[in-house]
Amino acid sequence: MSGALLLSSSPKSMATWRRELLALAPDLDLRLYPETGAAEDIVAALTWNHPPEDLFRYPNLKVLISMGAGVDHLFRPPGPPPGVAIVRLVDRLLTSAMSEYVLLAVLRHHRQAEIYRAQQRTRIWHELPPPDTERTRIGIMGLGVLGTDAARKLATLGFQVAGWSRRPKSVEGVESFVGREGLTPFLARTDILVCLLPLTSETRGILNRDTFARLPKGAYVINVARGGHLVEDDLLDALDSGHLSGATLDVFETEPLPGEHPFWGHPKIILTPHIASATVPRSCAPQVIENLRRLAAGEPLLNTVDPVAGY
Amino acid sequence: MSGALLLSSSPKSMATWRRELLALAPDLDLRLYPETGAAEDIVAALTWNHPPEDLFRYPNLKVLISMGAGVDHLFRPPGPPPGVAIVRLVDRLLTSAMSEYVLLAVLRHHRQAEIYRAQQRTRIWHELPPPDTERTRIGIMGLGVLGTDAARKLATLGFQVAGWSRRPKSVEGVESFVGREGLTPFLARTDILVCLLPLTSETRGILNRDTFARLPKGAYVINVARGGHLVEDDLLDALDSGHLSGATLDVFETEPLPGEHPFWGHPKIILTPHIASATVPRSCAPQVIENLRRLAAGEPLLNTVDPVAGY
Repeated sequence: MSGALLLSSSPKSMATWRRELLALAPDLDLRLYPETGAAEDIVAALTWNHPPEDLFRYPNLKVLISMGAGVDHLFRPPGPPPGVAIVRLVDRLLTSAMSEYVLLAVLRHHRQAEIYRAQQRTRIWHELPPPDTERTRIGIMGLGVLGTDAARKLATLGFQVAGWSRRPKSVEGVESFVGREGLTPFLARTDILVCLLPLTSETRGILNRDTFARLPKGAYVINVARGGHLVEDDLLDALDSGHLSGATLDVFETEPLPGEHPFWGHPKIILTPHIASATVPRSCAPQVIENLRRLAAGEPLLNTVDPVAGY
Repeated sequence: MSGALLLSSSPKSMATWRRELLALAPDLDLRLYPETGAAEDIVAALTWNHPPEDLFRYPNLKVLISMGAGVDHLFRPPGPPPGVAIVRLVDRLLTSAMSEYVLLAVLRHHRQAEIYRAQQRTRIWHELPPPDTERTRIGIMGLGVLGTDAARKLATLGFQVAGWSRRPKSVEGVESFVGREGLTPFLARTDILVCLLPLTSETRGILNRDTFARLPKGAYVINVARGGHLVEDDLLDALDSGHLSGATLDVFETEPLPGEHPFWGHPKIILTPHIASATVPRSCAPQVIENLRRLAAGEPLLNTVDPVAGY
């Protein structure tokens, strides 16, 4: 590649990426933000939560690579510079870690793990009514790479799995619901709702009181996408009214979640500090190098994002 | 069938079995223990934890059907009457419920769910070092119907899965270790040990201090087979010395687990009241009826047990 790759994330993450990228491409001209050198040298940027306005400083920037599966951080105002290609990471380990988290959250609820744990604390030996997997309906919002993998694995376990997406998707063993008109029937048949949508202007706040009201009473919600998908007060209302039975949350509007936030101590909420799936640089470095090679050769890039749709 | 089927379990379970069996075979002559009628009428028995000596009362008893996957309850002294065929239930729902439990226990440990739950209680936002699924080695003791299903599903998630069994087994993606000489290398490569063995004179007490010592430091133990597989004091020692990191237990030498038992309050033990997998009579009734038909027709029975091996 002629030109330099700008790296921008935490110092620890940048150090790891640097090591993995140089192991594959020792001659790569890497610039670790904010030590960018001459702005005109930068032709590509690999970033996470980078200040968006800074990217307008590089007149030769041609491709912006998200350091994860999500690209919503690249679309914060003022958005990416016009004409710059946007790509994201699609990685086997990132995908399987997300499915692990989703399976764990589903099974923990389905198999009444919290209730049995409470019974253990009070030394109660009591068998709860056994759950019926074949009658338990899981609904996955978002059938991209992550949603499809989670849906497949849940279907293998015997659950009734459906997906909801903007465009029709065909996944074996998974019922497909599409668009605005598909949302109500999708929600009406969903006992466990999993949000794996990209965060866009269309999907922001989609986990709201209207959505919850259309789920059957006793439904459970799992949000592993972005905090911006969830209207937090609406979730609290739906839990406290008893309409929803509980929620597992890995992402929040404000991260780290503030110490006084009501989610922390809520008896129906299980939360984790945005750990469902972390990018593993060792596993993702080859696709970054490959995209830089394609950029230099003028070939089509891998895993590009539609800048209008925002995902 | 000419002759009667003796049913013996809890009153509630007998009522359910009665309904499901009569729905398939309205003419079936059913006797609910202890209302057996004439002892010579009984040609088959479908039982769970029935007093073994009672079965010697029925001179025409030809087949003994366990009301579950395990048959160890039929081999308690004095054992089954000589010459009586023994069969067990093999059922899709029973198998998939067991795999659900195993997956939940594995993922809960692997994804540090208890630590994150404790962090939530103290409002700590802290990312733990992410687990490495591809380097996590699961060892399944017992590759029968249940062990094979769990092994396959865990392999699909990306774990390194091996099985240990008396005879060589071939399961795609699962390394096979065999017999006494295979036990030490199997244990040495196992981070998470899952016991799904039948309980026999060979396997009683197999989860003991020698076994634990051959596991790597920090290994985790899941027992979903029978309480008799585990030497309880040896587990407590291995947990308290720090050699094992924890255990999930669904079965116990004495059930219900006595209120004063040290397992209840142990910080490294998650326990449940023998709920990993329950027999669903609706799903299992057809194979009972089919075996009664085969008995009457003199055809080979399904899912027979080797009375010498005891499984």
